[in-house]
Amino acid sequence: MNHPLDILQQTISGRQGADPSISYTASLFKRGVPTIARKVGEEATETVVEALSGTPETVAAESADLLYHLLVLWTATGVDPGDVWRKLERRAGVSGFEERSRRGVSNDPKGR
Amino acid sequence: MNHPLDILQQTISGRQGADPSISYTASLFKRGVPTIARKVGEEATETVVEALSGTPETVAAESADLLYHLLVLWTATGVDPGDVWRKLERRAGVSGFEERSRRGVSNDPKGR
Amino acid sequence: MNHPLDILQQTISGRQGADPSISYTASLFKRGVPTIARKVGEEATETVVEALSGTPETVAAESADLLYHLLVLWTATGVDPGDVWRKLERRAGVSGFEERSRRGVSNDPKGR
Amino acid sequence: MNHPLDILQQTISGRQGADPSISYTASLFKRGVPTIARKVGEEATETVVEALSGTPETVAAESADLLYHLLVLWTATGVDPGDVWRKLERRAGVSGFEERSRRGVSNDPKGR
Repeated sequence: MNHPLDILQQTISGRQGADPSISYTASLFKRGVPTIARKVGEEATETVVEALSGTPETVAAESADLLYHLLVLWTATGVDPGDVWRKLERRAGVSGFEERSRRGVSNDPKGR
Repeated sequence: MNHPLDILQQTISGRQGADPSISYTASLFKRGVPTIARKVGEEATETVVEALSGTPETVAAESADLLYHLLVLWTATGVDPGDVWRKLERRAGVSGFEERSRRGVSNDPKGR
Repeated sequence: MNHPLDILQQTISGRQGADPSISYTASLFKRGVPTIARKVGEEATETVVEALSGTPETVAAESADLLYHLLVLWTATGVDPGDVWRKLERRAGVSGFEERSRRGVSNDPKGR
Repeated sequence: MNHPLDILQQTISGRQGADPSISYTASLFKRGVPTIARKVGEEATETVVEALSGTPETVAAESADLLYHLLVLWTATGVDPGDVWRKLERRAGVSGFEERSRRGVSNDPKGR
């Protein structure tokens, strides 16, 4: 439970009742899920753009912004982080193709 | 270093030289950064859509897909995961508004 | 009113009651707004990726896919295309900075 | 050539050499393709979010922003708008399933 992501998740959860005027996280909770979801989409776009035109440092910076807003989204929508970690543990233990075929997803013929 | 995300990161790194025909991760590396970046953007879109129309379980599932492809993107673009964690540690230690103002970003007047 | 976009919009509207098993457009309407919105997001991501790593031809192809799904989304959510064209006419008639300041949006200090 | 989209396209093309300090469009050209592509991705995300949580009016407004930035992206990357319109004309003339199978894309088994 000492991973930076878990520490940040706890910090975020603790700000649910905080004053929106002094906490950016609290202001996101107040604005609601559509605003938070939009931030996740926007930071993902920025990560994509930096991956194709930036540097490892700018990709890392946008990825951190993406992860932060994703954690806020989890809290706002009632996602249990442990549920996500368990899904990732399964991915770490099997080959991607096995994992995907178990989910009933064939490989995209367009090469995606 | 036992967090599922770190274990998955190691698994992904280890597949860089694997056979693309038996490892989905290796096939992503072979296709290259544009394909991987596109997957990150697509999974982010799915996460956004599920946050607004799905359940905590579907948000968790799409978030796991997003995180997996994000980790692949980090390896493909040379991002040091430790660099991302350090940025998140700083976020966990300060209020969001402080963090944002240090980055020289004023709060968006449109309410984003 | 003979612009390809208007003709396509009429074709799409006409498929609202069609058989989903023979019309892709009708199958999108049946799946509903979340699926259609997700397609818009995914095609936008592909357009972004092609703009940064592809050719004018691949950007054009992904843009066409994006526009098609956007028109389907308009029909599915009750958007009047004329409403969008009027907003674009206003943009064509004024400088972008004027347009943005009328909307009360200051220019982003981060350079977005 | 009287469609609002064509008029806007001409306006945008005409601003390629304009002063970035007085034209938002010119400032986008100066910032370059990565910035413009990011705006396309961000406005697409906003369109998706409004489709799932807003009104026809907010979807129309975000769609107009998306289209404006998409036209800027076409100019910046050398896309011929006529090329896009021709692709859409073909879509208007055939059923979606036909169109997709011609492109060699099978229908996604996951229901996308």
